[in-house]
Amino acid sequence: MGDDAMALWQEANRIEVLAFDVFGTVVDWHGSIVRELAQLAPAVDGDAFARAWREGYRPAMARVMSGELGWTLIDDLHRMILDDVLPRFGLAHLDEAQRAELNRAWHRLAPWPEVVAALQRLKPRYLLTPLSNGNIGLLTRMARRAGLPWDCVLSAEVFRAYKPDPATYLGVAKVFDLPPERVMLVAAHHDDLAGARACGLRTAYIERPLEFGAAHPKDVSPRPGNDLHCRDFADLAAQLGL
Amino acid sequence: MGDDAMALWQEANRIEVLAFDVFGTVVDWHGSIVRELAQLAPAVDGDAFARAWREGYRPAMARVMSGELGWTLIDDLHRMILDDVLPRFGLAHLDEAQRAELNRAWHRLAPWPEVVAALQRLKPRYLLTPLSNGNIGLLTRMARRAGLPWDCVLSAEVFRAYKPDPATYLGVAKVFDLPPERVMLVAAHHDDLAGARACGLRTAYIERPLEFGAAHPKDVSPRPGNDLHCRDFADLAAQLGL
Repeated sequence: MGDDAMALWQEANRIEVLAFDVFGTVVDWHGSIVRELAQLAPAVDGDAFARAWREGYRPAMARVMSGELGWTLIDDLHRMILDDVLPRFGLAHLDEAQRAELNRAWHRLAPWPEVVAALQRLKPRYLLTPLSNGNIGLLTRMARRAGLPWDCVLSAEVFRAYKPDPATYLGVAKVFDLPPERVMLVAAHHDDLAGARACGLRTAYIERPLEFGAAHPKDVSPRPGNDLHCRDFADLAAQLGL
Repeated sequence: MGDDAMALWQEANRIEVLAFDVFGTVVDWHGSIVRELAQLAPAVDGDAFARAWREGYRPAMARVMSGELGWTLIDDLHRMILDDVLPRFGLAHLDEAQRAELNRAWHRLAPWPEVVAALQRLKPRYLLTPLSNGNIGLLTRMARRAGLPWDCVLSAEVFRAYKPDPATYLGVAKVFDLPPERVMLVAAHHDDLAGARACGLRTAYIERPLEFGAAHPKDVSPRPGNDLHCRDFADLAAQLGL
């Protein structure tokens, strides 16, 4: 083992908690929403619909964090955005029950193929938790359905702040009474990782080139600053020595 | 199946979430603390020590809820009480590291013998969560060690209120976007169950006659008002049809 590898290994042994971003990192929101829509409305462009729904997410959270909206669960933000998006795709006729059911598609998102097996490998050594802007109910129902072996479910809902608010990253360390460097954030988004890094957490970037669908490949080239750059969760487990 | 049994069965099928009190209900705090103390200080009366430590719990929470103390995690309340109790048992000489380690005994409490197998039986049909005044870190580490198959970890820490504050019971229903009657609280304490019942939750009482040790048996005779009265978790699973 070279010096660099040894240093990484020693560092990995100090990490106690792996906190995972969920939408895009653990689960394939784009593919899942496309499949749900293909069932409900086969004539609609599912790719465009999924991206439109997701594009409303950050502006909606920004309205909460600015105080324009009171504290709002992601389930409710997803529904507000959905009601806004449906008419643009000729789906204004969907009734209340259909909208509620479609909104729960976010509880049914499928994990990327290697995720569950890799989390099982990581679990004996690390405490595993999501750290998502998704609400606890959404994350818990998703985990039951997908078989995600979380040890607990941490969410923006616990900390009353959305990522990248420092209260979320530091909140994980505080929950487990650990210094921030003993927590690693695992995410497919550089802004999320930058927020965690600024709080002293360790960071692992996960390539998810197809997060926005095969028609819209994402630049997943390495950027400086992250402790690990991983092809997927299997690669993360391997780089952590498991 | 008689009419009463049928009615119960139908009711059980409407319950989606089982929320469990933890200290005394899921885990044997008295026996676990007695065993920890026997290792550390064999000459001390472990039974009296365990009860003294636990007796400080309610008064300490009351000081938080009255506003005399700010919001405080149970880990920190346990430590305050421990520092108060140690001199009364001739243990004032314990140093900081020994006190911190002893305080983490609450993270290592052992479940009652039938608990893990019964939770595994319940899990396919019900969403399982603790609802404890214990903090998230404590509950999560306890669950990893004991193999408690929670779907998520709800705690006073999530709701910033201790049981029996209605914010805790109603908080569980709100997290899962359910009416209160679709959530059942499982507990070995009548005051906890009464709090849940007043909020519209279903309730199951669990007999734990030895919660305070074999020398101090607890009255576990049925009281009116609870939906179920169960000998233990295996009996709970059986009464819920599993």
